[in-house]
Amino acid sequence: MPKLSNSLKAELQDVAHALADAARPIALQYFRNPDQGLENKLERGFDPVTVADKSIEREMRRILAARRPDDGIMGEEYADTVGTTGLTWVLDPIDGTRSFISGTPTWGVLIGLNAGAGPVLGIVDQPFTAERFWGGFGQASWTHLDQTHDIAVRECATLSNAVLFTTMPEVGTIAEAAAFQRVSYECKLTRYGTDCYAYALLAAGNIDLVIEAGLNAFDTQGPMGVVQNAGGIVTDWQGGPAHQGGQVIAAGDPRTHEQALVLLNS
Amino acid sequence: MPKLSNSLKAELQDVAHALADAARPIALQYFRNPDQGLENKLERGFDPVTVADKSIEREMRRILAARRPDDGIMGEEYADTVGTTGLTWVLDPIDGTRSFISGTPTWGVLIGLNAGAGPVLGIVDQPFTAERFWGGFGQASWTHLDQTHDIAVRECATLSNAVLFTTMPEVGTIAEAAAFQRVSYECKLTRYGTDCYAYALLAAGNIDLVIEAGLNAFDTQGPMGVVQNAGGIVTDWQGGPAHQGGQVIAAGDPRTHEQALVLLNS
Repeated sequence: MPKLSNSLKAELQDVAHALADAARPIALQYFRNPDQGLENKLERGFDPVTVADKSIEREMRRILAARRPDDGIMGEEYADTVGTTGLTWVLDPIDGTRSFISGTPTWGVLIGLNAGAGPVLGIVDQPFTAERFWGGFGQASWTHLDQTHDIAVRECATLSNAVLFTTMPEVGTIAEAAAFQRVSYECKLTRYGTDCYAYALLAAGNIDLVIEAGLNAFDTQGPMGVVQNAGGIVTDWQGGPAHQGGQVIAAGDPRTHEQALVLLNS
Repeated sequence: MPKLSNSLKAELQDVAHALADAARPIALQYFRNPDQGLENKLERGFDPVTVADKSIEREMRRILAARRPDDGIMGEEYADTVGTTGLTWVLDPIDGTRSFISGTPTWGVLIGLNAGAGPVLGIVDQPFTAERFWGGFGQASWTHLDQTHDIAVRECATLSNAVLFTTMPEVGTIAEAAAFQRVSYECKLTRYGTDCYAYALLAAGNIDLVIEAGLNAFDTQGPMGVVQNAGGIVTDWQGGPAHQGGQVIAAGDPRTHEQALVLLNS
């Protein structure tokens, strides 16, 4: 991992916010717009990609080319750019396209910065609610309109007190859904349909667990950067590194994290 | 049904907005507040009611006592008030308490006005996103921050193009869940976890179907007033009146409504 000086950290934070700032007006131009230019990424099934997705990633890449030309870029929509600094920007221009095309304000613009072993910073931005969840270099905050507050995960000693979120009831494979249900059964409350917004709520101390499967690196590292810098834990379902995606569990409290891991693997 | 003059309609619309205006600051005072005074309504299970719920309904009842003292009131939290005008205010101070306590901005303040055979006006207000969905006397609108636009349902000729929402994957009983799944299987996309906000999205032409079971009159009439005045259809699963709650289906297009009814009852 490259050495990050304080001035470099400040620059990276500034660039991350610039990327999120650039994404907002483009996303809002297409959100709840009947003419939003849907495309079908898959021939079968329904994996919508919007013109907004591609427009935002192009704009982000333009900013990075100008301000951080030697960093790598991994985005959802375009081919990876290899860098020379050891730093890679991990971009998901619109995470939760199903929410996006349905009008629900729980999609987000995701930005992560990977220094090799995982993200050192992350942003989950929700343009419609005008919320930005930031985590980087040991500090996390929530900006809503013109107000910014520090955020932190909350304590939750046992699963019986935990609020659990995931995106779809199917979770992933049948075995993954069954593993999820073993945890869900022990939790106080399970909620669906929130995409990346669930990680933001966890980082802000509103909920206790997020468990998902079938994630990609580009939709994991932004949220992971927020949660980890707010004091939370993000691993795969075996307790190992999660930044490549796949089966991901995020927890605010190490005790519920451990209890959930046992059930996921029992 | 009582005769509603234009001046009475204007007064009722004004009172409805006053109720929603009064609810907003109280709701926001408790939303995402760790000290939000949760109570458990049921001894078993988890049916959270917040202090916010009760505070809002008390304030709404205070306004109605001053401005419409002879109307009836049916609210979630307190006993019904019998009126003499043939008009009954139907109040759900915070619909979607599970969303509310989890920090998700898809709960709402619901206000309906029943003139005997169902709601003649409805409001779904989302205080955090600063959105108000209004429907009354043949007109519907969406206010976001300081902007107001007319809204209307969208066309959707077949289920295969429909976006379907419900609150929980369990839906209701096992038979109700199976009936829901028959419809869901034919739809383009099914999403969960939105509570009353789903009806608002339908009224605004973002989605096509909402199917739920186990509703109460107080959580049905506000959304129903919005959807119907935006050109949509709200019935029970047999196609009959829905304003008493129970099994409810809302559709933007009569064709998808009819196709879904067939599957719900097959």
